[in-house]
Amino acid sequence: MGELDTRNRHFDKLFSQPDLIWMGQNTNHIPMHPKVREALHRAVDDESFHAYAPPAGIETLREGIVADLGLEGFSALVSDGAVAALGTACRALCRPGRRFVTTDPSWKWPLIFARQAGMEIVEIPIYGAEHGWRLSPQRLAEAVDAKTDIIYLVDPNNPLGTCATPEEIEGIASIARKAGATLIHDSTYRDFADRHTLAARFYPEGTVTAVSFSKWLGFAGLRLGALVARPELLEKIGAASMAPLGANVISQKAALAGLSVKKEWMATVQEIQRANQATVKRAVDKIAGLSVAVYPSQANFLVVECEATGVTPEAIVAAFAEHGIQVRQGAYHTARFGHRFIKVSTTVPREWADAFAAVLPEAVEHARGLKDLAPLF
Amino acid sequence: MGELDTRNRHFDKLFSQPDLIWMGQNTNHIPMHPKVREALHRAVDDESFHAYAPPAGIETLREGIVADLGLEGFSALVSDGAVAALGTACRALCRPGRRFVTTDPSWKWPLIFARQAGMEIVEIPIYGAEHGWRLSPQRLAEAVDAKTDIIYLVDPNNPLGTCATPEEIEGIASIARKAGATLIHDSTYRDFADRHTLAARFYPEGTVTAVSFSKWLGFAGLRLGALVARPELLEKIGAASMAPLGANVISQKAALAGLSVKKEWMATVQEIQRANQATVKRAVDKIAGLSVAVYPSQANFLVVECEATGVTPEAIVAAFAEHGIQVRQGAYHTARFGHRFIKVSTTVPREWADAFAAVLPEAVEHARGLKDLAPLF
Repeated sequence: MGELDTRNRHFDKLFSQPDLIWMGQNTNHIPMHPKVREALHRAVDDESFHAYAPPAGIETLREGIVADLGLEGFSALVSDGAVAALGTACRALCRPGRRFVTTDPSWKWPLIFARQAGMEIVEIPIYGAEHGWRLSPQRLAEAVDAKTDIIYLVDPNNPLGTCATPEEIEGIASIARKAGATLIHDSTYRDFADRHTLAARFYPEGTVTAVSFSKWLGFAGLRLGALVARPELLEKIGAASMAPLGANVISQKAALAGLSVKKEWMATVQEIQRANQATVKRAVDKIAGLSVAVYPSQANFLVVECEATGVTPEAIVAAFAEHGIQVRQGAYHTARFGHRFIKVSTTVPREWADAFAAVLPEAVEHARGLKDLAPLF
Repeated sequence: MGELDTRNRHFDKLFSQPDLIWMGQNTNHIPMHPKVREALHRAVDDESFHAYAPPAGIETLREGIVADLGLEGFSALVSDGAVAALGTACRALCRPGRRFVTTDPSWKWPLIFARQAGMEIVEIPIYGAEHGWRLSPQRLAEAVDAKTDIIYLVDPNNPLGTCATPEEIEGIASIARKAGATLIHDSTYRDFADRHTLAARFYPEGTVTAVSFSKWLGFAGLRLGALVARPELLEKIGAASMAPLGANVISQKAALAGLSVKKEWMATVQEIQRANQATVKRAVDKIAGLSVAVYPSQANFLVVECEATGVTPEAIVAAFAEHGIQVRQGAYHTARFGHRFIKVSTTVPREWADAFAAVLPEAVEHARGLKDLAPLF
């Protein structure tokens, strides 16, 4: 069996496990808002999904996404998931032999797309207290050169949970502008931050903001994301789209319902997920050698450092899996720092975080003895 | 306003028109099967969509797709719509300076993706009675050379509605094998044909079969398609996927329900759409200068030739639009032959076909006087 099938069966096994405590993919498992549920059922019953949606998205949703960011004069390209949107941006903007600058850790898929397009990937290490777990404009400036076409910033950072300050964003935007590079500001986790600053405010003509409905609204399996940019830039990116027949109709209609209740919904979500962060942190702090890297996280997950325990992240992941709890090994995110941590998602019912906390001591002990681990993905 | 926004508003206007008679995109507007409706509601209520589906698709659906084709030893890659699947195949297989051979007319998007990847596109004209509205293996053999990496065959052909015979498919597959080319057999419309032959039977190691749930099951706005190939080839294509987080969960669950009732459902659909074909043909035959190119069509649409009326397809499309009926101008499909026809979809409620027939004489007359037409897409 090839890698595709092996990997798929691994995820299918997880997906089809009804009681799985899924804290490994930053997904949001808090039961959905009644208005969203109602919109989903209505979109099934009205059968409008027999038609294709407009290619760039339902117009009211496009406007809603731009309004939600508070940007004026910007335009949105809706897609089946933010990763497809980032793929489209890479198809439009990547050129062989040019540079794609990002952080380490970062979110791996756009790096893969850029590498496939022949770009040279430059990863600036930001893991560790010595960097403040963040990208300083100064270090970005040192890495950016005349060959740099794209700067890819995941902010809040996945997996670290740090969020750039307005001053840092201003500095980063200014470096991108000076280099003539496009700044892809992946803002998937912005709604979990106490304060998020859009780079598009400082560098409107050259910033592409990526947003997703997977995390704040719990739509991971409904595949809905978008790119937001000035119309001229979006036009260029849209020409590289491989989805000329639009994105999912039911997901778009439900996303509109989600935007209409966003304030109330996110108050609930934040209350639960920040409480879950506290639960995880308390449990982690009791175990020698474990620590939370960034707290509170400005996203819906925590990095739990485990190197000092002498146990590998892979063994801890395997030990948790035996309890029906999925967390993620650092190597999913970063080859360089992956041996130092696991990542734990917190947009889950409180009982799930409690279960994680209860199992943690036993999982770490059990992990010490684990050998011959199955491959992880 | 740029092309992206202009185009999008055009489609948004159509999409948001509740009583639109949509006979322009081969979509299926026959009210859905109760089992599919039930599966959609259940997939909303079970909230499993908070998680990502397995990257290549839910395993039972992958198996169901392969079983539906009756292929053994093949594997499926499920995607958010067949066009994304074809895009992935193009990303994996296209190389600059190599040849992509297809018919004219063909379905334009894979040609666009291949051209963007630097391939030389060769279109073999098959429009017209002199070609039997179809691709003969002999003419394919003349067009294929050592530079040919991909042969893209839409079969049944969109828009013509012809379907290759077993002998033709055997010949085409043999030419592809001799050339060492991958044969992309776009089988989106296969379920509307009286008899469809899979090229994968003759050239298993080098054929990629593309299938879609948009047309037979009415899932256009639910975005679900798949590629089917031997595991080795699928592995290569899967590595170029830009959808590492899987396809829509609700759509996949409903597609499984659709497969479970497919025989019964397609009997109903075929009865309606073939009756609609007859309704359209009767109306067309009454008007001097109009004729149906291929009848009965082996797909869910008809090509109506209009050149002899002296009226352009664009004017006829505009005239129908005034009656809330959308049909498609030939230029959507082919620059060379686009001035000769409109295309009319037939997987619609019977009343829609009746409305088309009733309006046709008036629309053609009205079209004669139309000037300064808005751009069509």
